[in-house]
Amino acid sequence: MTRIAILGATGYTALELIKILLHHPDAEITTLTSRQESNPPIAMVHPSLTDRLDLCLENLGPTEVASRADCVFSCLPHGVTASLVPHLLDAGCRVIDFSADYRLNDSEVFEQWYGQKHSDPDRLGKVVYGLPELFREDIIDAPLVANPGCYPTSVILALAPLLKKGMIKPTEIIVDSKSGLSGAGRTLKLTTHYAECNESLSAYNIGRHRHTPEIEQILSTAGNTNVEIIFTPHLIPMDRGILSTAYSLPVGEVSEEKLLDTLREFYANEPFVRVVDHLPGTKDTMGTNYCDITARVVRNRVLTISCIDNLIKGASGAAVQNFNLMYGHDETTAL
Amino acid sequence: MTRIAILGATGYTALELIKILLHHPDAEITTLTSRQESNPPIAMVHPSLTDRLDLCLENLGPTEVASRADCVFSCLPHGVTASLVPHLLDAGCRVIDFSADYRLNDSEVFEQWYGQKHSDPDRLGKVVYGLPELFREDIIDAPLVANPGCYPTSVILALAPLLKKGMIKPTEIIVDSKSGLSGAGRTLKLTTHYAECNESLSAYNIGRHRHTPEIEQILSTAGNTNVEIIFTPHLIPMDRGILSTAYSLPVGEVSEEKLLDTLREFYANEPFVRVVDHLPGTKDTMGTNYCDITARVVRNRVLTISCIDNLIKGASGAAVQNFNLMYGHDETTAL
Amino acid sequence: MTRIAILGATGYTALELIKILLHHPDAEITTLTSRQESNPPIAMVHPSLTDRLDLCLENLGPTEVASRADCVFSCLPHGVTASLVPHLLDAGCRVIDFSADYRLNDSEVFEQWYGQKHSDPDRLGKVVYGLPELFREDIIDAPLVANPGCYPTSVILALAPLLKKGMIKPTEIIVDSKSGLSGAGRTLKLTTHYAECNESLSAYNIGRHRHTPEIEQILSTAGNTNVEIIFTPHLIPMDRGILSTAYSLPVGEVSEEKLLDTLREFYANEPFVRVVDHLPGTKDTMGTNYCDITARVVRNRVLTISCIDNLIKGASGAAVQNFNLMYGHDETTAL
Amino acid sequence: MTRIAILGATGYTALELIKILLHHPDAEITTLTSRQESNPPIAMVHPSLTDRLDLCLENLGPTEVASRADCVFSCLPHGVTASLVPHLLDAGCRVIDFSADYRLNDSEVFEQWYGQKHSDPDRLGKVVYGLPELFREDIIDAPLVANPGCYPTSVILALAPLLKKGMIKPTEIIVDSKSGLSGAGRTLKLTTHYAECNESLSAYNIGRHRHTPEIEQILSTAGNTNVEIIFTPHLIPMDRGILSTAYSLPVGEVSEEKLLDTLREFYANEPFVRVVDHLPGTKDTMGTNYCDITARVVRNRVLTISCIDNLIKGASGAAVQNFNLMYGHDETTAL
Repeated sequence: MTRIAILGATGYTALELIKILLHHPDAEITTLTSRQESNPPIAMVHPSLTDRLDLCLENLGPTEVASRADCVFSCLPHGVTASLVPHLLDAGCRVIDFSADYRLNDSEVFEQWYGQKHSDPDRLGKVVYGLPELFREDIIDAPLVANPGCYPTSVILALAPLLKKGMIKPTEIIVDSKSGLSGAGRTLKLTTHYAECNESLSAYNIGRHRHTPEIEQILSTAGNTNVEIIFTPHLIPMDRGILSTAYSLPVGEVSEEKLLDTLREFYANEPFVRVVDHLPGTKDTMGTNYCDITARVVRNRVLTISCIDNLIKGASGAAVQNFNLMYGHDETTAL
Repeated sequence: MTRIAILGATGYTALELIKILLHHPDAEITTLTSRQESNPPIAMVHPSLTDRLDLCLENLGPTEVASRADCVFSCLPHGVTASLVPHLLDAGCRVIDFSADYRLNDSEVFEQWYGQKHSDPDRLGKVVYGLPELFREDIIDAPLVANPGCYPTSVILALAPLLKKGMIKPTEIIVDSKSGLSGAGRTLKLTTHYAECNESLSAYNIGRHRHTPEIEQILSTAGNTNVEIIFTPHLIPMDRGILSTAYSLPVGEVSEEKLLDTLREFYANEPFVRVVDHLPGTKDTMGTNYCDITARVVRNRVLTISCIDNLIKGASGAAVQNFNLMYGHDETTAL
Repeated sequence: MTRIAILGATGYTALELIKILLHHPDAEITTLTSRQESNPPIAMVHPSLTDRLDLCLENLGPTEVASRADCVFSCLPHGVTASLVPHLLDAGCRVIDFSADYRLNDSEVFEQWYGQKHSDPDRLGKVVYGLPELFREDIIDAPLVANPGCYPTSVILALAPLLKKGMIKPTEIIVDSKSGLSGAGRTLKLTTHYAECNESLSAYNIGRHRHTPEIEQILSTAGNTNVEIIFTPHLIPMDRGILSTAYSLPVGEVSEEKLLDTLREFYANEPFVRVVDHLPGTKDTMGTNYCDITARVVRNRVLTISCIDNLIKGASGAAVQNFNLMYGHDETTAL
Repeated sequence: MTRIAILGATGYTALELIKILLHHPDAEITTLTSRQESNPPIAMVHPSLTDRLDLCLENLGPTEVASRADCVFSCLPHGVTASLVPHLLDAGCRVIDFSADYRLNDSEVFEQWYGQKHSDPDRLGKVVYGLPELFREDIIDAPLVANPGCYPTSVILALAPLLKKGMIKPTEIIVDSKSGLSGAGRTLKLTTHYAECNESLSAYNIGRHRHTPEIEQILSTAGNTNVEIIFTPHLIPMDRGILSTAYSLPVGEVSEEKLLDTLREFYANEPFVRVVDHLPGTKDTMGTNYCDITARVVRNRVLTISCIDNLIKGASGAAVQNFNLMYGHDETTAL
C-alpha cells in the first residue's frame, strides 16, 4: 500500500484526486495539507467527502509530509511547489506535481510567462512531462513528474501524432479552445461568479495564456521541430470539459481518412485515447479519463477536434495514470 | 424630466434599473454612486452599458446627491440606507429604497432579524410598502417607498387575495420558494461560485430567512389577522426567476375554480399580475414585470404557485412601477 | 461471473447502469435489447461508451434473453415489463425491474394511477421493493426486485425512520420535491427541449404524480399506519439530482438534535445514507450512490431535506446495490 | 400604424419578434400564421405572451395574409418562404424574410447548400441583404428584405470593415463560432434535448454549415474580392448568444490599435455596433440589438471577436431595425 500525501487539498483537482484514489486498491491517503490554520476535517471543505475520508487538513512542512507519505501529489499554486519539491525528493518521496513549475525546460521561459523567478531552475529540463501517451517509459522510474496542464493535454494528444508523422506544418497552427469553469479553480473571482458567467461566453488571455509555451515545447519535442501556435481559450458556462478545435496546414496531400488512420494507429494501444469518426462532445468524456479525438479536412486545412474532462484526463486522472505507471500498477487502475 | 440618482450602482438590481430607466421617456439618470474611490465609468463595472450611459460612479454624500436628483433609488445594503434616507428626504428628494430598512413596522423585529440597531426607528410604521397591487393609493404621494423583497413579492401576491377573502387559514402556511442565483447578489461567495452552485440545488437559511417577517407583516395587514408562515428558500442553478409554492389550509370548502376566480377578480385591473390556468414557469416571466399565479387543491390543501423575475417584478421593475405612480406616469411606462 | 442482460438499453438509466457494471468484477453484460430494428452498436446510441462495451442492441424476446443471461435488468417502460417478467422468471432468470410495474401491491391502485390494466396482477404484493435500507433481508433471495422510483427513494429514506419511531404524524405530510431533467428521460418532449427548460423552473403533475401512491405505500408499511402525502414535483434546470423538502407534524416534542440522532441511529450501519448536520446540496451526491439527509424544526413543524443523484441512488446505483445483495457480493461493489 | 403579419409564429424568432413589436408605437400585429390546424391562441403556444397578445394562430394563404397586413415578417423554413413571397409582393405587401431563401445571389449555390430547387430563382441577386450597417440605403425602399443569418451577422460585422480597408487577406480566414442552443430552433431533436446538450460542448456541421456561402458572398461584396472562409460552428450550453472568433492574415503591418481605430471609424455612427477594448462576453449583448466587437493581433495574425444575441441582432432585432428603415421610423425604435 502506497502512502499518499496531497498538498493543497482544498481545490477541485485535489477533490477529484481524492475521489479517484478512494477507489484505488493500492493507495492510502494519509495526509492532506492546506495553509489554513484551523485544521478542518476535509469533509467540511468538500461536503461530498462526508463519511468517505476521515482526515483533517494540516499546515505541514515537507519534512513532516515526507515522514508520512511515499508519494506526494502537489496541487499547490505555481511558484510554491518548486520551493518544496527539492525537500520532498531529498527526503525520498516521489512527487507528482499539478503546477506548471516543472513543465517547462527553460527557466527564462518560465519567468517570462509566469512573472516570477524559478526557485529550482537547475532541475528544469530533467523532469518528465507526465503524458503517458508520449513519455510513458520515462515516467515509470521518475522521482518527479510534471503533470500536464488541461488545455495542453487536449491539444497535444490531437496534434502530436500528425506532427510526428510530418503530416502538418509546425507553424501557423491555430488552437481555439473552450473550457468549462471548474478549470478556473475555486478561488473567488468575478469572472467565475455564477450570475456573471452563466449563460455567457467569452474569450480570455488571448495571446498570453500560460499554456502556450507548454504546448509549443511538448509539440516541438514530439515533432522534432519548432512548433508555433496561436492559442485562444474561451470560458464556457458548464462545470467540466475542454474542447479544442485546432486548425493546421497539411504537408502534401491529406484526407480525413488518412488523418484518422494515422491517429488510430498511433493510439492503437492506448487505454485512454479514443479516435472517433463522429464529432465528439465533452459530455462523452465527462467523469472519465478519456480523450476523444477526430479530424476533418476543410479547404485544404486540417481540423482536429479533441475533448477531455479537464479535472480528470486534464488533471487528476492523468496524475493517477502516472502514479499507476510509477508504482507498477495496471495503468487503468481506479480510472 | 425627473432627475434620478441611483445609490449603490454596482449590483444587479441597479444594472437592471438602469436598463429600464434608459427606456423611460421621463427619467434622466444624473447620478450613480458607489463607495469605490476610483470613480470608474459605469460601463467598466457593467460592460453591457457600454455606449448606453456615459456616467461615472461617484462616492457622494446625501447633500450632493440631493442637489442633482429629484428621485433617489437606493440599492444600498440593509443598514446603510437608513442612515442616508432622512437627509435625502429633508433635502426634498423622494426615495425608493431597495433595502429592507423601511419594510418592517417595528424596529425590534428589524433588530431581531437583521442583527443591528435601526438608525431611523421613528419612521418605521409610517413608510408605504411599495407593492402597488395592495398599496397603490398610498404610494402615489409617498416621499419614501420601501420597495418589496423578491421572495415576498412572489408570496404576497399569491396569498393576499385568499387571506383577504378569508378562504385560507392564516397560520400553518408553508412556503417553499426557489430562486435563481442573481438573487444572491454580486458579492463574491463560495455559495455563488459557478463550479459550486451550477448543477446543484440546496435549501438555505431554513427558518431564519429575513424575508419571513416581511411576508408575515404584509400578509397580516392584508388579511387583517395574524399570519404565520414557514418559509424555506432554495437556490436554483439559473440566473433569474423565483417560483414560490405555498401550501395553506382552506377555510370551508374550496375548489380550484373558486380559487382562480377569486384571484382573477382581485387582479382584474392589474397590469402586471396574470392569473393563469396552467402551471407557470419562471421563464414565462423572465425579463418582464409580470407575476404569474395559479392555484390547485390537493387533498383539501390549497396550493398556490407564483413566479416572477426576481430582478424585475422582484426589484427594479417594481421600483419603476412605484416611480411611475409617484410621478404621475402611466404605471406601465418603460416596463 | 454473472451474465447480465439489460432490456431497453437506450435510455439514461441503462447508460448509467452499464457504466457502473463495467466496473463490477463479477458482472458481464452479454445482452442489450431495444425495439429498434437496426441493431446499432451501443456506442452509436451512447457515444460515451465508445471502446468500452462492444455490443449491439438487439430486438429479442424473453426466451432468447434468458438463454444469455442469469440476471436481467429491465429498463423498459411501465406496462411493457409486466408482460415479459413472468417469462423471464419461468426461464430461471432473476429480474431487477426499473419500471413501476411491480412496486405497488394493489392492481387497482396501479390501474388508477397508470391508466392501464396490469398484465400480471397476481404477482403484486409478493414482490420485494428494492430499497435495501428497509427491505434488505427480503432482497437477498428475491427472484424479482422492484427497483424504487427516484423521488420515492429520496422521500422514503428521509421519512421512514421518523414514522417508524412515531415521531411524526402519518398524515398532512407535504413533500416538495425538485428534480434535474435527466429524470424526465430521453424521449423528446417540448418540456425537456433545452431552450424551453433551461433557465426556467416549474412545478408539474401536481396532485397526480405517479410516485405518490408508491411513497405512501412504502411509508405506510414502514410506519405501520396509513400515510398520506401531498406531493409536488418541480423541474430544475440541471442534469441530475433530486432534493426533497418534506414538512410533517411532530408527535409530542421534537428537536433538531433528537431528529438527527434518530436518523443517525437508524442508518448507523448503512453504507449509502449520510445523515448530515449541514443543509446538503444535490452536488454532494452527484455521481454517487449516497443519499444525504438532514432535519430541522421550524415553528413546531419537522422539516427533512434529502438529496440523491436520481440516476444512481435513484435508479441504477440502487439496482446494482440490489444486484450485489442478490448475488452475495459486498453491497458496495462497483458503487 | 403599420399592420403586421408574422408567418410561422410558433418558433423562437417569432416569439422574440412579437415581444419587440409589442413595444413598437407604429406596428400592430394583426395576423399570426402556422400550419397547425387547431388555431390555438398564441399564448397557448408561447405562455409568456399571456395577456399580451390576443390573437390565434391561423393557417392562411398569402391572399388572406395580404388583405390583413402591410408588412409581412416570414419566419417560415427555408424553401417554404420562396413559394409564398411572390404572391405577397404581388399583393402589395412588403416582406422581411428570416429564411435563407433570398440571401444568396445564385440559385445554383442555393441548391448546392440547401439541397433543394429554388422556386423563385429569378429574384435572386435582386434582393437586398438586410444588414443596415452595410446596405442601409438599399433597405429603405426595398419591397423584400433578406434578413441575415445569425452567424453571418456576427462574422460579417467583424470582418467587413477590415476587408473593405484592405487590412486583411480575403482568403485563409478561419471563423470559429460558438452559439447558444436557441439558435437550433424549437423543433425537437436529440441534439437539443436538455440532458444531452446541457454541460456539453461540441462542434457540428464542420465544413458544410449553410451560413458559409452567405458569409462569403456578403464579405466578397463588401471587400470587392473573392472571400473564402473555413467556418466551424459549435453548440454551447446556454440559451442565447453567438461569439465568433475569426483569424485572418494581415496585409502589411497591423496593430491592435489600428484595427480598433478602423472598426471604430467604420461604425462611428452605427447605433447597434459597439467596438470595445475589452474582450466582450455574449451576456453583454443579451436581450439587446448590439453587436460587440474587438480585435487583437497575435503572432502576426489578426483576431476579431464579435458577439450578439442570436435571437435579436441575429434575427428579430435586425428585422425590426430593417422594418424601421423601410417605414421611416427612427432606426432604434422599440430596440
